Amino acid sequence: MIHFGNDYHRSAHPRVLEAIAGAGGAYAGYGADELCATAAERIRTACQAPNAEVHFMVGGTQANATIIAHRLRPWEGVIAADSGHIATHETGAIEHTGHKVITLPNQLGKITAAQVRACMKEYRASGVEEHMPEPALVYITQPTEFGTAYSRAELVALRAVCDEYELGLFVDGARLGYGLSASDITLPDLATLVDVFTIGGTKCGALFGEAIVFPAGAPRFRNAMKQNGGLLAKGWLLGAHFAALFSAPRASADALPGTNASYADASATTPDTEVTGTAATTLYEQICARANAQAQRIAEAFRAAGIDMLFDSPTNQQFALLTREQEEKLLQDFVCQFFEEHEGLRVVRFCTAWSTEEGDVDKLCAAISALK
Amino acid sequence: MIHFGNDYHRSAHPRVLEAIAGAGGAYAGYGADELCATAAERIRTACQAPNAEVHFMVGGTQANATIIAHRLRPWEGVIAADSGHIATHETGAIEHTGHKVITLPNQLGKITAAQVRACMKEYRASGVEEHMPEPALVYITQPTEFGTAYSRAELVALRAVCDEYELGLFVDGARLGYGLSASDITLPDLATLVDVFTIGGTKCGALFGEAIVFPAGAPRFRNAMKQNGGLLAKGWLLGAHFAALFSAPRASADALPGTNASYADASATTPDTEVTGTAATTLYEQICARANAQAQRIAEAFRAAGIDMLFDSPTNQQFALLTREQEEKLLQDFVCQFFEEHEGLRVVRFCTAWSTEEGDVDKLCAAISALK
Amino acid sequence: MIHFGNDYHRSAHPRVLEAIAGAGGAYAGYGADELCATAAERIRTACQAPNAEVHFMVGGTQANATIIAHRLRPWEGVIAADSGHIATHETGAIEHTGHKVITLPNQLGKITAAQVRACMKEYRASGVEEHMPEPALVYITQPTEFGTAYSRAELVALRAVCDEYELGLFVDGARLGYGLSASDITLPDLATLVDVFTIGGTKCGALFGEAIVFPAGAPRFRNAMKQNGGLLAKGWLLGAHFAALFSAPRASADALPGTNASYADASATTPDTEVTGTAATTLYEQICARANAQAQRIAEAFRAAGIDMLFDSPTNQQFALLTREQEEKLLQDFVCQFFEEHEGLRVVRFCTAWSTEEGDVDKLCAAISALK
Amino acid sequence: MIHFGNDYHRSAHPRVLEAIAGAGGAYAGYGADELCATAAERIRTACQAPNAEVHFMVGGTQANATIIAHRLRPWEGVIAADSGHIATHETGAIEHTGHKVITLPNQLGKITAAQVRACMKEYRASGVEEHMPEPALVYITQPTEFGTAYSRAELVALRAVCDEYELGLFVDGARLGYGLSASDITLPDLATLVDVFTIGGTKCGALFGEAIVFPAGAPRFRNAMKQNGGLLAKGWLLGAHFAALFSAPRASADALPGTNASYADASATTPDTEVTGTAATTLYEQICARANAQAQRIAEAFRAAGIDMLFDSPTNQQFALLTREQEEKLLQDFVCQFFEEHEGLRVVRFCTAWSTEEGDVDKLCAAISALK
Repeated sequence: MIHFGNDYHRSAHPRVLEAIAGAGGAYAGYGADELCATAAERIRTACQAPNAEVHFMVGGTQANATIIAHRLRPWEGVIAADSGHIATHETGAIEHTGHKVITLPNQLGKITAAQVRACMKEYRASGVEEHMPEPALVYITQPTEFGTAYSRAELVALRAVCDEYELGLFVDGARLGYGLSASDITLPDLATLVDVFTIGGTKCGALFGEAIVFPAGAPRFRNAMKQNGGLLAKGWLLGAHFAALFSAPRASADALPGTNASYADASATTPDTEVTGTAATTLYEQICARANAQAQRIAEAFRAAGIDMLFDSPTNQQFALLTREQEEKLLQDFVCQFFEEHEGLRVVRFCTAWSTEEGDVDKLCAAISALK
Repeated sequence: MIHFGNDYHRSAHPRVLEAIAGAGGAYAGYGADELCATAAERIRTACQAPNAEVHFMVGGTQANATIIAHRLRPWEGVIAADSGHIATHETGAIEHTGHKVITLPNQLGKITAAQVRACMKEYRASGVEEHMPEPALVYITQPTEFGTAYSRAELVALRAVCDEYELGLFVDGARLGYGLSASDITLPDLATLVDVFTIGGTKCGALFGEAIVFPAGAPRFRNAMKQNGGLLAKGWLLGAHFAALFSAPRASADALPGTNASYADASATTPDTEVTGTAATTLYEQICARANAQAQRIAEAFRAAGIDMLFDSPTNQQFALLTREQEEKLLQDFVCQFFEEHEGLRVVRFCTAWSTEEGDVDKLCAAISALK
Repeated sequence: MIHFGNDYHRSAHPRVLEAIAGAGGAYAGYGADELCATAAERIRTACQAPNAEVHFMVGGTQANATIIAHRLRPWEGVIAADSGHIATHETGAIEHTGHKVITLPNQLGKITAAQVRACMKEYRASGVEEHMPEPALVYITQPTEFGTAYSRAELVALRAVCDEYELGLFVDGARLGYGLSASDITLPDLATLVDVFTIGGTKCGALFGEAIVFPAGAPRFRNAMKQNGGLLAKGWLLGAHFAALFSAPRASADALPGTNASYADASATTPDTEVTGTAATTLYEQICARANAQAQRIAEAFRAAGIDMLFDSPTNQQFALLTREQEEKLLQDFVCQFFEEHEGLRVVRFCTAWSTEEGDVDKLCAAISALK
Repeated sequence: MIHFGNDYHRSAHPRVLEAIAGAGGAYAGYGADELCATAAERIRTACQAPNAEVHFMVGGTQANATIIAHRLRPWEGVIAADSGHIATHETGAIEHTGHKVITLPNQLGKITAAQVRACMKEYRASGVEEHMPEPALVYITQPTEFGTAYSRAELVALRAVCDEYELGLFVDGARLGYGLSASDITLPDLATLVDVFTIGGTKCGALFGEAIVFPAGAPRFRNAMKQNGGLLAKGWLLGAHFAALFSAPRASADALPGTNASYADASATTPDTEVTGTAATTLYEQICARANAQAQRIAEAFRAAGIDMLFDSPTNQQFALLTREQEEKLLQDFVCQFFEEHEGLRVVRFCTAWSTEEGDVDKLCAAISALK
């Protein structure tokens, strides 16, 4: 079976595994080590945010709950799309820390500045503000759970409404790698426009890990991490991950791992190099951009076969509208994921990842073509 | 100004004030006193539930949060209408105790058994139950925030779906007095069909207080009360309230307090009497039934004046559709409450209460009639 | 039986009952009424703190939990004596809001500035601050659970260490009335030296209620009150209480209610008067000072009978060291409370209150004298 | 510098790294994979508990908080030594989930059945149980934070008092590997005597990870894991760890990794083998037993040099009583950890680990010998 089921079913990029295998020293505990320092510095460089505070946590739900619990006062709530991860698939982790998730109807996974403004106007006009959770933070995902991505203009508009109503703005980047090449929002944009964002590792080449970036700092965030069970004893593991992902790609080994063999071969002797120059990019961005390109090939194959997509997605998640017969044919050789029924058809998700092989995409496109 | 703005703007029924004024003894603390025992016994009698566990708390938000926190495991959530009090006007008190309020779209304040079933089916079919808050309790209000009331058949259907999916059923009766005469659901029905319900005092003749009835008991509920700051030191005050409200009405003084003067006169020498016989009713039920009847007079006055109501309400809250001119005329002499805009008209709430004087209703009806 | 068992077994001072009985108007809900405004103003006057923010809640555990939850960030803890009410008898209400109570060994119910300083030094020197709850608030009770009282010098020293380590200082005054005449700490001192304090009603003449005074304000405290189930719908009740307790005493009726009869007589026609002049005092202070004087009479009677007190207490709680025979003799006519065994003797608490009759103290003193 | 500072400063045992490097497949997410299944089965075998429920989490604080929050009702608390990890170094993570840690004075890190019984008697005799957090779980660490270990007899006595008072019993085995060979308590004993225990990985050869064993199951524990941010997306990583640690040791490569070189050499081609036979042991037990033996060599070297240990420790942590001069001499070449002052001497901790080299122990012993 060839796997297009999700973007976290494989181990980690060879450069990450190599970094872990090579970590032979004695490290200070809880993230106070040189690998974390290097990783944080590389992220600050990539974000052009020399004063940003960077922390590392193992998982996304943990990071979301800790960020929100750290920021909010008890009676405050967080605004999110009703499709937002914190509103749907975190077993009430946010509520567990005492806060209401105030949901707005999603627009293909996104919420707009206008929606936030209307929500705040209604709250302020209610006359019973103290009887309602006070909205204090806006949570969005980039890219969204549906694979759509905010544009820079949309983010600027959200920032404006947040400033207008004294709201924080939090971007959950669990799949941020796939969003960077699919949108005009850059890492420096995020560092300029939002109060906190995460750079997801788990789905973008890491074994695990989220980098959390606070452009303007976040006093006592490590206390909140520890209290929420998220201060990894061997924190250097997270540093090793992000130091590798935010180094420069090695042309031969990293850029085009065309076959599985590359996993074994990748432990090259070339040392990590810093990303330099404004045109440069990181391994993190490169491997995710490649997955996006693969996803576009798949979407084009569907369209060429006369099969509609549920909507245009610029990222690694593609939602095709299949008949049950078509779905079953593809399921013979490929892992993909049923999403929902839609007007008599089956919405089926095909997901590429940093680990997707070109040859496997070729095979999927051929199979799609054969559905005609 | 004559007040139809809400049902908690006045003090308490004379019989309640009399009970407090007469409480001259030394009482055991924290509800372990004879007045609470008497009140609990009268409520068990009225509910025909001799084994029910009855507790008393000061306020509704406090009672709701304590009941829910007592019942749920940490990862469980409570299903409610999106208009439910716990979902809207409790400043996130439920989330403060760690639980998600899972909202369903209200049908004039109510939710249906079919909605609950669909919600549970979706949850069970999700394949990721452990990533979602587990629905474990259904919360409804009787009557609802809109003044509508569930029928016995609707409640029976909700009980059935709760049994089917192992859900608890909780009826918030903050205005239960007004619901009892407006619906075919009786107190014994509640004691038979639900896991826990409250009998609201604040809006039904008391200074404050909610009686909480657990037909099948609730081990350690007093611990939860204390932890949630809701174990009143002079708990006998609550006992005095509910012992008075659940005694038999006194024909002359209680039934028709036609004028404010009756407040002073009501401290009659007649002692409280027990409610006896199956046809009998309590002071609580009687004073609320009277308010419902007054509310119907108001609704009829509007209809007679050619003014539509937003919907039919059988209880003490009536929502009239007024032009701004009509609203302003009434506001010259009457306190009422703007609710929302509706198709170019103003939805304005008129609320009667246990304390509403007949003469004041006469005046309002006359003013409505003059709007023609 | 004559009751010296606790200070909350009786109803409320006649002036309070009179205020409630006289509250015949329509009141705005949730504390936004004129009675609360009057009460807050009288408290500000008594505290010589014209800018203080004053709120009213029903109970002490509720007030403590709300104040602490409002002030602390999630990873912060509150320092308290191990005998402090929040550490012992609130069913973990503080932990329920997520915060650790960091206990120090009590010195007859008190903690010292030196203890707090040592605690903070140890914390700062630990090298693992982020692995420990951060002490951020000091909680003391005035008078303490043992009836002892801080001196002004002790409070000044605590303020100094709090300033040194950026800690808040919170005085729980559940029995503050009894502390005021027993210590050189005045209400204006509290308003100058602490960040928040409560003025307890339940044990000092009220049916219930705590006034919460924030000399420098507390933004969004009402939101926290509502979230913690502590925003009373008929908040004017609390206003009525504290407006009465903080008015001037009426010489004849209030000062010396020598017999039970005075409860009925007290509903004099004299209206409440403001407290004026710097030498003046309030009803609240006067009725508690009287209880303290009664308690001293009892202690002196024990000493005259050759019976030791466990320690000197200047307030309304007295702890006598009795043989079991002595205890049993007194228990024939008096309610008192066994506290603990101490070196072969029984520590028995005798508690006066605002409601204690002079004649009953006479009888107790006579009975004590007969123990010789 | 040679490191005896703690037991988590190095990466992971070669067999663990090998397992991760070899994980080339596509894995189901969130622990529903074959590696976790294998690991769980090997743990059940080692515990002779075929029906035990086994889960894996990344960190110890996370595991402790999740276990406790899963088990307790809101008003319940957990009894622990005042030196217990949950009471000292988890930033109030337990309180963050709403529960009080009820501390008892430690006896070299341990608490006794007699202490628990006295605590429960006092609680039950208080007469105000509902005003106090209800003790519902006993938490102990094996070995303790001081390196001491409970005996089987002590654990049996704790079980008895837990049965007597209906308390759960939870053993935090963050360093369990070091406890197994230092005590007569076996894994099957734990599975028989306690309600839940953890098998710590982080300090015993893993990169991270705690196995959580519920001998009698724990319904919905995965929901609690997710809610507490502890359901690792690539859960197979934890499975790979514990499958390796609970396989049989390979005689040459695992048993005596005498030099650092072995880390590179260890990726032998020999596959993992199951542990078989009752006399057999696991890699986990073997590598920790070796660290204990090294620690005993160090303790003996101190004693031979006339230097006292603070107390006898049978595990990998040894506390020597040094003069400042002695401490400074050792600090020239060795990393160790100052613990506290004790009667004019410095208590300094020396910690071995699964990763400690024999040659480094030789050098330390020689340096100790030179202190004479």
